[in-house]
Amino acid sequence: MISVVLIGTGNVATHLFETFLAYDTINVVQVVGRSKESLSKFASKTATASLSGILKKADVYCLAVTDEAIPKLVASLKCVEGLIVHTSGTVPLSALTELAHTGVFYPLQTFTKNTPLNFRAIPICLEVKDPKDFKPLKFIAETISDRVYEITSEKRKKLHLAAVFANNFTNHLYGIASDICEESNVSFDILKPLIQETAFKINLLSPTDAQTGPARRNDIQTMQTHLDQLASKEQQQLYKLLSESIQKKYLNQE
Amino acid sequence: MISVVLIGTGNVATHLFETFLAYDTINVVQVVGRSKESLSKFASKTATASLSGILKKADVYCLAVTDEAIPKLVASLKCVEGLIVHTSGTVPLSALTELAHTGVFYPLQTFTKNTPLNFRAIPICLEVKDPKDFKPLKFIAETISDRVYEITSEKRKKLHLAAVFANNFTNHLYGIASDICEESNVSFDILKPLIQETAFKINLLSPTDAQTGPARRNDIQTMQTHLDQLASKEQQQLYKLLSESIQKKYLNQE
Repeated sequence: MISVVLIGTGNVATHLFETFLAYDTINVVQVVGRSKESLSKFASKTATASLSGILKKADVYCLAVTDEAIPKLVASLKCVEGLIVHTSGTVPLSALTELAHTGVFYPLQTFTKNTPLNFRAIPICLEVKDPKDFKPLKFIAETISDRVYEITSEKRKKLHLAAVFANNFTNHLYGIASDICEESNVSFDILKPLIQETAFKINLLSPTDAQTGPARRNDIQTMQTHLDQLASKEQQQLYKLLSESIQKKYLNQE
Repeated sequence: MISVVLIGTGNVATHLFETFLAYDTINVVQVVGRSKESLSKFASKTATASLSGILKKADVYCLAVTDEAIPKLVASLKCVEGLIVHTSGTVPLSALTELAHTGVFYPLQTFTKNTPLNFRAIPICLEVKDPKDFKPLKFIAETISDRVYEITSEKRKKLHLAAVFANNFTNHLYGIASDICEESNVSFDILKPLIQETAFKINLLSPTDAQTGPARRNDIQTMQTHLDQLASKEQQQLYKLLSESIQKKYLNQE
């Protein structure tokens, strides 16, 4: 049995809390948050405290807060004896350097309120300052997930950058597709199976081998027809730049 | 029972053929292709013929060929009595105008060789010149898929354009994410669950509501750090343009 104090009450904290609750071997002894209101949903299930309150003794203190809040919390954690980890993709481990036992517990996923997630499939990237601290962190990670990786701060930063392309930018392209459908009075639902299949395909083929479409075929005529159909300068610019990028990638491969 | 002659031997033709075979109510009486070699995989299961050969009598003639091949085939189909449909997302119905009974049977999906697909989930967009021809086409579509739509040529063109963003461009972003991982010696596998979740999320939230990330938060500092980390000018340009597009979209909503 490992004891955890969870600091934070947002999406990541809530998902972690619910997941930890499901396992007998992880005991969340306290949730710490800014306001009584934000703590209310945890209060019936464990002890809670404000940020200025007294922290309970625990094996691991898990900071599930915004990147900006991490350095501000460091001072208040100096007297803590356990392992202190943050859950950020971008903040280096060195941000916790003033503390004795530190690490990173970064679940690489997009967390949405009220949307249940299967944590077993979520990759968790771990890092510790002192190798001796790896064991408890790995225990927690492997209890809740089947995909646990040890990743340095430098690599985690790159992974987070890659995730911006694979998640944030991809979702924005879904948004543009949805806008085009709406402008033409076509239901965006028609595109949803294609979107699922595109994402599923990378489990079978590399994105390089899976690429299709007019830019891949260097089909200048279709690309020009598409450009003429796009309503905004911005959509046209994106279409051009993405197409050029695809053309350039495959030009050298033919 | 409805009889079909399938013209074409590529990915779409092969997937349609395998799917039709599974239903007793659709009888593929002939597959027509350019070469004996391309026809060989069909030859043990139905009659085959070359493009210059004699076409069998059928209720529906389905052109599963490239966009460029469609106008070239029109002349050779003039004496055919059945309904002639093409399967393209971009070619208008009017491309078949010289023929008597024409339509479009467009399955909106990305087809890959040797990758099985569940056709029941694939949207099929139908269009006919003469409303009387709608019934047999709808029968075939509804036999193999649960998502059948009647869509005009104009709307189908827009849908195809939207699909370029939702599929081709999205896959290219997966490729860039994969490149960033490779450059940093991080396994692209770590990103795959995030990619699946991003695609799955649009079934629960609109892309507009699902958007997250530094550009969405207008987090200038993280965006600058990301730009500094990107290896190529091209990746930087894409990062900038996509981020600006996201920022612009949400700026007016705050």
